[in-house]
Order: sequence, then C-alpha cells, then structure tokens
Amino acid sequence: MTRLLAELPGPRIRDLDERSVLVLPTGSVENHGPHLPLCTDALIAEEVTRAAVSGAASDGLDVWQLPTLTVTKSDEHAWAPGTLWLSWQTLMSVVTDLGRSIAATPARTLVFCNGHGGNTALLQVALRELRTRFGLRTFLLPAMTGDPEAFADELGLGIHGGAAETSLVMHLRADLVDLASAAPSVPAALAGYELIGFHSKPVSFGWTSDDFAESGVIGDPTLATAEHGRQVYELSVGQARQALHEIVRFAVQQPTPRGTNR
Amino acid sequence: MTRLLAELPGPRIRDLDERSVLVLPTGSVENHGPHLPLCTDALIAEEVTRAAVSGAASDGLDVWQLPTLTVTKSDEHAWAPGTLWLSWQTLMSVVTDLGRSIAATPARTLVFCNGHGGNTALLQVALRELRTRFGLRTFLLPAMTGDPEAFADELGLGIHGGAAETSLVMHLRADLVDLASAAPSVPAALAGYELIGFHSKPVSFGWTSDDFAESGVIGDPTLATAEHGRQVYELSVGQARQALHEIVRFAVQQPTPRGTNR
Amino acid sequence: MTRLLAELPGPRIRDLDERSVLVLPTGSVENHGPHLPLCTDALIAEEVTRAAVSGAASDGLDVWQLPTLTVTKSDEHAWAPGTLWLSWQTLMSVVTDLGRSIAATPARTLVFCNGHGGNTALLQVALRELRTRFGLRTFLLPAMTGDPEAFADELGLGIHGGAAETSLVMHLRADLVDLASAAPSVPAALAGYELIGFHSKPVSFGWTSDDFAESGVIGDPTLATAEHGRQVYELSVGQARQALHEIVRFAVQQPTPRGTNR
Amino acid sequence: MTRLLAELPGPRIRDLDERSVLVLPTGSVENHGPHLPLCTDALIAEEVTRAAVSGAASDGLDVWQLPTLTVTKSDEHAWAPGTLWLSWQTLMSVVTDLGRSIAATPARTLVFCNGHGGNTALLQVALRELRTRFGLRTFLLPAMTGDPEAFADELGLGIHGGAAETSLVMHLRADLVDLASAAPSVPAALAGYELIGFHSKPVSFGWTSDDFAESGVIGDPTLATAEHGRQVYELSVGQARQALHEIVRFAVQQPTPRGTNR
Amino acid sequence: MTRLLAELPGPRIRDLDERSVLVLPTGSVENHGPHLPLCTDALIAEEVTRAAVSGAASDGLDVWQLPTLTVTKSDEHAWAPGTLWLSWQTLMSVVTDLGRSIAATPARTLVFCNGHGGNTALLQVALRELRTRFGLRTFLLPAMTGDPEAFADELGLGIHGGAAETSLVMHLRADLVDLASAAPSVPAALAGYELIGFHSKPVSFGWTSDDFAESGVIGDPTLATAEHGRQVYELSVGQARQALHEIVRFAVQQPTPRGTNR
Amino acid sequence: MTRLLAELPGPRIRDLDERSVLVLPTGSVENHGPHLPLCTDALIAEEVTRAAVSGAASDGLDVWQLPTLTVTKSDEHAWAPGTLWLSWQTLMSVVTDLGRSIAATPARTLVFCNGHGGNTALLQVALRELRTRFGLRTFLLPAMTGDPEAFADELGLGIHGGAAETSLVMHLRADLVDLASAAPSVPAALAGYELIGFHSKPVSFGWTSDDFAESGVIGDPTLATAEHGRQVYELSVGQARQALHEIVRFAVQQPTPRGTNR
Repeated sequence: MTRLLAELPGPRIRDLDERSVLVLPTGSVENHGPHLPLCTDALIAEEVTRAAVSGAASDGLDVWQLPTLTVTKSDEHAWAPGTLWLSWQTLMSVVTDLGRSIAATPARTLVFCNGHGGNTALLQVALRELRTRFGLRTFLLPAMTGDPEAFADELGLGIHGGAAETSLVMHLRADLVDLASAAPSVPAALAGYELIGFHSKPVSFGWTSDDFAESGVIGDPTLATAEHGRQVYELSVGQARQALHEIVRFAVQQPTPRGTNR
Repeated sequence: MTRLLAELPGPRIRDLDERSVLVLPTGSVENHGPHLPLCTDALIAEEVTRAAVSGAASDGLDVWQLPTLTVTKSDEHAWAPGTLWLSWQTLMSVVTDLGRSIAATPARTLVFCNGHGGNTALLQVALRELRTRFGLRTFLLPAMTGDPEAFADELGLGIHGGAAETSLVMHLRADLVDLASAAPSVPAALAGYELIGFHSKPVSFGWTSDDFAESGVIGDPTLATAEHGRQVYELSVGQARQALHEIVRFAVQQPTPRGTNR
Repeated sequence: MTRLLAELPGPRIRDLDERSVLVLPTGSVENHGPHLPLCTDALIAEEVTRAAVSGAASDGLDVWQLPTLTVTKSDEHAWAPGTLWLSWQTLMSVVTDLGRSIAATPARTLVFCNGHGGNTALLQVALRELRTRFGLRTFLLPAMTGDPEAFADELGLGIHGGAAETSLVMHLRADLVDLASAAPSVPAALAGYELIGFHSKPVSFGWTSDDFAESGVIGDPTLATAEHGRQVYELSVGQARQALHEIVRFAVQQPTPRGTNR
Repeated sequence: MTRLLAELPGPRIRDLDERSVLVLPTGSVENHGPHLPLCTDALIAEEVTRAAVSGAASDGLDVWQLPTLTVTKSDEHAWAPGTLWLSWQTLMSVVTDLGRSIAATPARTLVFCNGHGGNTALLQVALRELRTRFGLRTFLLPAMTGDPEAFADELGLGIHGGAAETSLVMHLRADLVDLASAAPSVPAALAGYELIGFHSKPVSFGWTSDDFAESGVIGDPTLATAEHGRQVYELSVGQARQALHEIVRFAVQQPTPRGTNR
Repeated sequence: MTRLLAELPGPRIRDLDERSVLVLPTGSVENHGPHLPLCTDALIAEEVTRAAVSGAASDGLDVWQLPTLTVTKSDEHAWAPGTLWLSWQTLMSVVTDLGRSIAATPARTLVFCNGHGGNTALLQVALRELRTRFGLRTFLLPAMTGDPEAFADELGLGIHGGAAETSLVMHLRADLVDLASAAPSVPAALAGYELIGFHSKPVSFGWTSDDFAESGVIGDPTLATAEHGRQVYELSVGQARQALHEIVRFAVQQPTPRGTNR
Repeated sequence: MTRLLAELPGPRIRDLDERSVLVLPTGSVENHGPHLPLCTDALIAEEVTRAAVSGAASDGLDVWQLPTLTVTKSDEHAWAPGTLWLSWQTLMSVVTDLGRSIAATPARTLVFCNGHGGNTALLQVALRELRTRFGLRTFLLPAMTGDPEAFADELGLGIHGGAAETSLVMHLRADLVDLASAAPSVPAALAGYELIGFHSKPVSFGWTSDDFAESGVIGDPTLATAEHGRQVYELSVGQARQALHEIVRFAVQQPTPRGTNR
C-alpha cells in the first residue's frame, strides 16, 4: 500500500490521528560540481525518506511521506547557473503554509527529513515556529549520516559533493554520476583554524561555495564508491527509521492543546 | 537522454541558450473527493509536461522539464483536511524566486504547464511580474484540455474531480482511482444565472469548493472512462507540444534586454 | 438621493443589511496613447457603475457605490511616464483593507466593477481571499462590454485604446479625446499564433504594452465614433445592472457564517 | 484648461520638467458623526487642492492635481461601521508606489495636501522615504487651516467633526450636512492635563475616537456656520496657494541627483 | 532598588498590575558632527529616563525602565558612515513585538521616552497601533526639552548637534564632547520661508541632514556650555517625571478591555 | 580609550579600514527562573564582548564593540511574562539593517558575539544573508563556553539557567542572583532518547521552555558557584579573544568585491 500521503483520496485523511507522523523530505536543486546532478540532495532526501517510512510502516507505525520540497534555500550556490533556490523568507513561508495545512488534519507531528545542509539552520527556526503557531510536534532529521572518519583525506571537510555524498548517489542512481569528471577540492586551509570552521568548530562563518573552489565542490569525490554508498544508505535509512520510532514515543513535552496559537 | 533539468550536472546548464525553454509543471495536493487522489493535478501536470517535453525535444527543440511545483494555491479546498496549500503571497514568492534563479541561466523562457485551475489567475499575474522584473519571456499553458461538450450532463460545470479529470487519472494511474466511491455533484443551480459563473460567464464570483457539495466535487465523475482519459491525454499532450513550438518561434514582443529590472 | 456610500453620515451605515450590495469601481491612470486621457479606465468604471447603481436602486435594490479606486495595477504600462501604478502586492493590500472595512458593516456583498483589464487576474485572486478571510460574498464584473465583432479590422485585438474604448470615452467626455492624434496599432502578428494570445487563446503570455507599438495602443482608435460609444455604454450599463440583480438573488453558495476567518 | 494630471494624454507628461509640481489630495472616508458625510476629509482635501492649484496655475506655476487618495489611514475610527481604512503598511505601500510612478516622469516634486489629521505622522515618514528612495522633493501641506481661537468653547479641542470642519463642509456641500443632528462633544477632561494632549501639548497619546464620546465627534459642531466655512475655505486655499509658490522656489536643499536610490 | 525591569527575575513580573508604567528610552546611533558621539540621542534618552523613573518611583509610582532601543530610524543621516539605522518597517516591527511582549504582562501602559526627533512621527503611528492591537495605553514623551529662545543665533533651527544638545552631553558625559571641533551650521535660508520649515511651520518637507551642511549638524554647538546642559537636564527630567504622574492618573480614555485585538 | 563604536564621533568612522572588526553582542531579556535576572544573556554577551574586545585591542587589533542587541528571539520563553522578544522576521530585519549600515563604513567584518542559544540558528542564516547581500565577512561566536562535563548531574542538559550560566552571573553581578530561590530542573527523560535531543543529538525538536518544567529552567542552578563562574568567564573571554585573532587573519574566502549585491 502507498505511504505517499498525496496518493490518498481526501476523505481518507480524516482517519489519521494524534499518533500519525508525516515526513517531509527537503532536498535542493543546486550545483554539486560536474560529477553529480543538480537534484542530488532532493534525491537523497526522497529515497531515504521512502525507505525509512516504508520500514517504519512495516513496524506498525502510522507514518506517511509528504511530497518532496525539491527547491529550497541554496543561496550559497546562487552564483552557479542551474541552482534553483528560495530565499529564506520564501522557504519559511512555504514551511509555515505546510504547517497550517497539516494542523488542519488529525495528525500532530511533522518531521523534516533534510538532505541539504544549507536548510538546517532555517528549519531549526521553523521547528519552533510551527510548534508555537500551530501546536504541532516538530522534528528535524538529517537524511544522510555516515562515518565522519571514513575519508581521512577529506579532513572532515567533505560536506558538498564529496566522497560520501557522491558514493550515495552512485548507489541510488549510478546513471546520474560522472565520476570521470570528478576532481578533489578540499579546503585544506580551513583546517588551519582552531575555532572557525564548519559544524564541528565553535565559530561559524558566512560562506558561499565559490569561496573554496571554482567547481563549488567541498570534498573529494574521487574517493567515492558505490559500495560505500550502499553503506551510507543503510546507515541513513536505519537512523531515520529508528528516529521515527523515537518520535512516535517521544513524551518529554507537556501536552500542547491542539491548535494553540499565539 | 533525460529532459529533467535537475538531473543535469551544474556546469551543463551553461550550454543552454536564448532558444532554450524551461517548463514548470504546477500541480496541487488537494481534496478531489473520495474517488481521486489528493495529487490529481500534480500528476496530470507532470505527466502531460513529461510527454510534451519529450515530444518537443524529439522535434529538435531545446526544452527542459523543471521539478514539479506540487503544492500550490488551493485555498478553495482549505476546508478539506489533506489539502496542502500555499497562500497567494507564498506562491508568488516561490515563483519569483524561481524566476530569479532561471534568469541566472542562459535560458530566457519559462513556461508554466498548469494542472490546477485555482492557480491560473495568480500565475497570470506572475507572467508579467517575471517578465518585467527579470526580463524573462513567460507563458502559461493549461496542462489539460478536452472537448467541453463531451459530457452534456455536466452542463459545462465539470471543473473539479468531474468526468474528464477522473478519466484522465484512470488513464494515467488506474490504481489511484476508486470509481466505486464516485458520486455526481453538478451545481445545476449555477446554470440558472446568465452572467455569473465559472470561466465562460462574464461575472466571476469568490467561491470555495464546499459551496456546492459536501464532497467538494464539481462535476460528475461517474461518467468517467479510461478510454476517454486516453483521448484527453492525447489532446492535452498534443496541445502542449504544439504550444512549445509556437513559444520557441514567438516573435511578437520587442526584444527585452536581458536582466532588465525595474 | 445619493447612492455614493461615502456621502452618507456614519451612523446611516448601520441601516445596511445582508442584502445590501456595495460596488467598487476600479479604474486606472495609465497611458492610453496620444488620443485618450490617462484616466480612461477610471472614467469608464466610475460612469458605468454610477448608471448601473442608479438604475438598480430605482429597481428597488439596496446598492451603493464606493469611492473609485483610481490608481491600480498598470505594470504593463509602467514604461510610459504618467502611468501611476500599484504593485500587485500593494493592490492586494488595498483591496484586503477595504474588505476588512466592509466586513465591519452589516453589508455582506462586494462587487468590483472593473474598467482595467490589467486588474482582472489579481482581482480574481482577491475574490476568494476576501470570501475566505472576511466571509464576504464577492463578485467581479467587467465595466465595459460590447460586440467583439464590431471592428473586424482590429482582428479581435482592440484591447487598449482601441475602437470600442475610444468610442466610449467620446460618448462620456468628448472633450478628453483627441481623435486627430489617433493612429491604428493592431498587433497583427499575434493573429498568426493558434494557441498563444490574449483572453480568447488558451496560452497566455507575459506582455507589456510597448511590446507591440511605441504608442502603447493595442487596437485601431481611428474607427471610433461617439455613436458607437453610446451603444457600448448602454450595453455595459445594461449588463452591469442585470448583474446586480443576479448578484442580489445569487443563492448557489452555502451560507457563510459572518466574520468567518481563517 | 484642466489641471487634473489624469485628464492629460500620456505623451503630454513628457512636457513636465524639474519645476513642475504635482499635488496629491489625501482625504479619508470615516465616521464624522451624524451631521457630516463619511467623505468629509476627502472632500475638503480635493476642493482646497483644486482651488489652490487653479490659482497657482493662473499665477504661472506648472502645478498639477493628482487623483485624490480617498481612503487612507483611519484606524482611530475603525470601530465605526462605514469607516473605510488602510493600515499604515498599506498606505505607505500606496504612497511609495505613487512616488515610484512620479519619479518616472520629468517632475521632481510631490506635495501631499492632506485633509485627514490621522495621516499626518505617517505622511511625514513618507516625505523622507520618497526623498531618499526616489530623489523626489516632497512636502506635506495641511488642506485646512483657520483661526484656532475662533471657537473658545471647543477649548482648542475641535479636531474632528467640530465647528470649523462642519462649517467648511456647509460652505462646500451644504446638502451633505445635517446640522439638526449635530451635538457638542468636547473632551473637556483633556484640558486638565498640562503635558498630555493633542498637537499643542508635548506628550502624545494613542487614542481612538470612541475614547471621548459615542458619536466619535471631537468638537462642537453646533457652532458651525456656512459663513465661517467660507472664511476657513479662503484661508485654507490662500495658504495652500502661497505654499505652492514657496515650494517652487524652495532652494534650501542640496541638489539631489535624479533617481538617487538607496 | 533597581528600576531596570530587565534586572528583575522573571516571576517578579507577575507582581506588576494595571497601574504599572513601563518606560522605553529610544535613542539613536547617528552622526552628530565631529564634536559629539554617535550615541548622543541614546545617551540622553537613557539618562533622562533613568532620572525620571527613579524620581517617580520615589514619589510612589510603580514605574520601570525598559532596555534602551539604541538603534532606531536615522535615515536622514544614512549618508554618514557610522550611522546605524533601522528602516521604518523594521522599527515598527520591533516596537510591535515589544508591545506584544508587554501586553503579556499585567502592566497596561507603555511610554516611549524619545531622544531622537527622527523617530517622532513613526512612534506616533505606533502609539495608535499598539493601542488598537494590544489594548495598551501608550504615550510618547520627548526626552529633552528646554527654552527654545535660549540661543537666538540659532534662529530656532538648532535641532541636531546644536547648542542645547551639545550642552546636555557636556553635562552628562563631558569626556565624549570635543568642543574644539565644533562649528556653527545654522541653515539660515530656511528662516526665509514663511510656511515651510521644521516643526513650528505648517508645511513639512522631506530632508536629509546633508541638505544643509557637510557636517550634518543643524545648529550652533559653539554656544554650548555644561551649565546650560545642567539646566536642560533638569528641565527635561522634571518634565518627564511630571509626565509620568499625569500618565498614571490619565483617565480620559474609555476603559479598553485587556487584549482587545483587531 | 573607548572601544565602544557608538562613543566615537561620526567622522572618526572614516578611519576604519578593511581590517577593522565590529563585534555585536546579542543577548536576550527572557525568563531565566526565579534566581536569575531577565537580562542574563544580554549581560553575559556584553561583558564577554567588552573584555575580549579590550584584550584584542591591546593586542593591536582594530576591533570595536557595537551597541548590544538586548532584545532578540526568545519565542521559546514567550509564555513567561517579562520575556521581551522579537519574532524571527523582526530579528532578521534588524540584523539586515545593521548589516546595511555597517556596509556603508570602511569596515568589512561583523562578528555576532551571541549570549542566547535561541538566536543561534537564525544568526547562522543571517551570516550568509549579510555576506551575499552586502559583501560583509560575517562570523558567529558563542559568548559563553565552558567544560561541558563540569556538572555531571545535569546530564549535559544544563542549557538555560543551569549551573554554568548561574555561576557566570554570580561572577559578573552577584547582586542580581538569588541562589536561595534556585531549584534543580533537569529534563532527565530527554537522556532516554538516543537520537532526539539538544545540540549533541542528530535529531532536533521544536520545544518551548515550559515543556520541561514550570519554572522554565533547564539545568541545575543549585550547583552554581562564583568561583566556577570566574572560570567560565575566563574561558569564554579567552576563546572570544582568540577568535578575534583568527577572524582578522581568516583568509579562506575568495575576496568579495565590496558592496556586491544580489
């Protein structure tokens, strides 16, 4: 049976209830260099969601997949033609409108399964906004996970079009990967700063992907293999499926009266 | 070869040129009654676009399909749980952001292939906005067409979940149609007004789909057949393909300097 | 007695009731070429509304004329100095604020009597917005109608400053027409497209009025006569008056609870 | 010859120049009690502008009257049905759009001739906004002036529907005044505060017109006479005409490069 | 005991009541010429508020000082590097959010103690907005007052960085004044207009501070003395303290139901 | 010499150059339970910034402190009276306006020194926005750091009003701490989830501070000591000072043309 909510007829939605969980894949259409398709993040978010929802449903959870938000906040790649991006204001408006729509169903839980790192901060803002505005329980789950130590040559900086992501697309859609055109592009200079850096350092900075290399790639895709992609896929789906279980039984919050509004 | 723009690698976009045409399917996720899936309009827009783009490409046109805008302006069905909808402000923001993104490519032409009537007026506003703001040539093409006289019993009022639309989904995805639950719902009273009505009458009115019946259906889906769906599909794809040819050679407008901005 | 709502003293408004109908003329101040005044559309909307409201009132309807919205959405003429125009966002804000104001009276029905084609799409969006947001019954009525076949030489393309509109202004305010400076400007090339075109073709396109000619005129004003203007006027007032009768007795919609708000 | 800018044909606008002055009457449609029409402020602004522009034109100035902004910011009267009002955001948007339109003409000077006190603060904000955003020279002129000591019984508090305003409407449109229904409504308690009060006191406060009396009137209209109205009219037109002369020769500001934009 | 509201622990706020008054100092960070610090207005607003609140509290009033709004609407000085400014939209958003926050406490009264003339008009708009939107009683109090005739050579035009303001900063923070770099800059030409001018003339105009002199100063700071500053300070604190007393007992308005919302 | 930018006279700002660094403390005014003042985060951000800027300046860096943004995004504490908070839209507007102001100076680097965790995600969005919109180099530095293992009983969950923060305020302003009223409030249930949690877990959730306890405290303030506060202070100032050094020499990014704008 389908777990795609949009494939249900309208009246069927009335059968959802407070334990139902709706999962929204959020991807992106943005330059990932010459070796990966623009839709890399959307593909990953959609496929991981599909497998995790399917698995969780077979575990007996009432989980449903929402239509993928394909174009999101990719302003760090706006310099590259082909990147389709929403401003932060627009993405918040879209997410708010979706929250309002979901709050009109019996379901009370929305999970973002996010395939694009550039969305993370804004979606964290959205988690609270949808919670306080519509009384929804909200969660943000990274679509992709993996072993951060897997590719030492990337110095922990393989965050965009690098070895892991390329591997994952090789596993999912080998026809869309052109490994021959891949080239390493690791911003090694970043490793020279103790405090400033990406997520693992305390000081963030405002960057665009052409800061580091003309290709816009951050990482070393030449290290990618389909086999590593399979491992990343299984880890990611496994984490997402486990997260859905935790989400269903998550009981830390005080009960929020339905439709509570500021 | 793929005609899905998002499946291309980023650098490939630089090969587009002024004759390239990008087609954006715009659907909806909204109640269509008990017999049709929520995603009816998105399905139709995406499938008609796919076939028309594929056909036009095989005719030698440089046409590309953008990722479907699945959730759009469905405020007339907001009363029905399961309808996912964007406000008019949000949809205009999304479309404007897409226009800005497209204006950064060498392509200069954007075509909306629209499967949801509730978007038409707003997209007409957007045509001019994107034209004047980004210098894009813009077109709005209805995804579905057909013989308006085909189902006389619908009195020309079969505009939502009626015989033609149901037929088309039967042709495209029979598994998503539950004809057994279909019921006729033609707002015959409307026919009693000479001036007020839907598109064919001069006076428009502000309606929501529960004005006419509890199911939200406007038309008679019980008349639908897969065979009629096939005819509608072929007419629709044919019209869209012909429109793409006209669009490529459309030369009425004065040349707009690229990137002209207010 | 006056039918101008704004000439009433405030407390008199409490005497309106659910059958009262308020009519808002929407015009424009925009270039109409050298032979017509900037205020052409506002003049037409106001005069047709005045006559139709007066007639309908003498028929016993409780109808009232609101102050004309003189400056509206004329972005297709923004290139021509003298055009005063509101962005689509601003016009929607204005119309929303008027809707809120009207919802605070006992009247429940708002009719736009629109003299400027560039407003049509946006006002259709507004019809539903005001309906769902304020519980108002809303209608959009074209101020001007006529025989589309009257001037064959215009090829059905006489939509701005052409024969019919010029004739109507000659009837209403001959002093404001300079027929000597009129010149034909019919975009005949448009007729060569089967699908793309103005309202009567299925594919819309984003145009500005300088696409077709330097004067911004679309049509052939040299064919205009005051006598034809009189006919257009009578047809237009007649249609508007009849529409007001239909609007008062319009009973297709489910009753909307007053002040229903999203 | 007409001094109404909107009655000119479009190409005529190109003849304006840097010395041309455009005057925008800003009125309101708001409750003024039982004795005055809703449109009182719009009527006053329009009539004073008309006479002042006509006089200044006969003095040789190149001044033009813009279409009256009839509905403006009347939130202090929003409680009274019949008041039509724009939010402050909407009014600023309208005025900004008008500024953009005017900046596209050769004229560089915009004067608000304002008949509604509730607009004053916001229009002062707009003066600077239009100056810095579009390089326009901007001025705000009160449509009505008079002898503040004329009606001692009003304690200087006759600011809305009081003796002076009622007199002025009696002079302009006696048919719209129902003096029999007028009643005095002077908020005498206000006089007991040394610092808090209307314009003449240093401390402002946020009020709505029903703070003081159920009728919404602030002043004593029973003191009004048509003869006093004639005097107010002449003083007001005289001041406006003199202001137009000062505005044309106003040379304190450094020249602003045309179209300077933030 | 502290009168700084933000130094209280959260639960203490529940002890406020309907007679409590919250005072918000509004300053600016903007060029005041070479002799005064950027923070001049913020300093004045904060110091006058501190003394007035302290005095009023010792008189037995329940008054509290809110954290100073340091950066406000200084668009007239945007040309001068170092000016930090909010657009009018942003300042209104900030003030609206503060109003919402305050409406959630038991207090019902908000007083702006404003040190920057460029804020006055917008804050007057805000007074009514916060009143109607949140049911707050709102007041606007100028932080600084003085004898307008004190410096005849300034022709009443000493409104920015002039003799009085410079004196006041000399009194408050002599270390921040560099009188040696002060130069007179009185826009004497303004005095030649009967109607157009700053606050004391009926016709306002849209100005920026570089209209008058390169330094941005409007007035004659060379006349300043610390002794005059002390007098201005005492007058200002005295007026603010008296205003707080009037505000507490202000009883002209009809009682507003708490939390009344449009 | 002052390192407070707002204490400089305007013309002095022209002496800044591309190596100058401006540091904006961002705090909050929000409930921190009965034992801490509302202004806790603002106090911490301001004091750490002051010491770090002072230290870095004595090291020879051209660093300057901007006026503290005291009220920020505290929507997770909006339920508690006394919390003053900006919506995410307003905070982004404020920060954008500050970015625009700073871009008008010769300085090119803005550092947020943030004392309130609820701002982190939104400020990360702002980093990129200010970078791409104004060409500024932007950094986000947490005002407070410490040994996360210091208080094992807090289970790593002492994020609001807990042992470390309370200690720090005891060090900075002992007079504002009422340790007697402190009570432990550790949401131990959270530790039972492997994936869902605060920053150290992969799955985020939308929470408000009353989810965990009525006091709004998250942590165990009873463990706090002034001595521990001194250590946290020194660690925090040390990290901030070191970060300023790294920021000045940060050279990973391609040079951004000044004033580059989308």
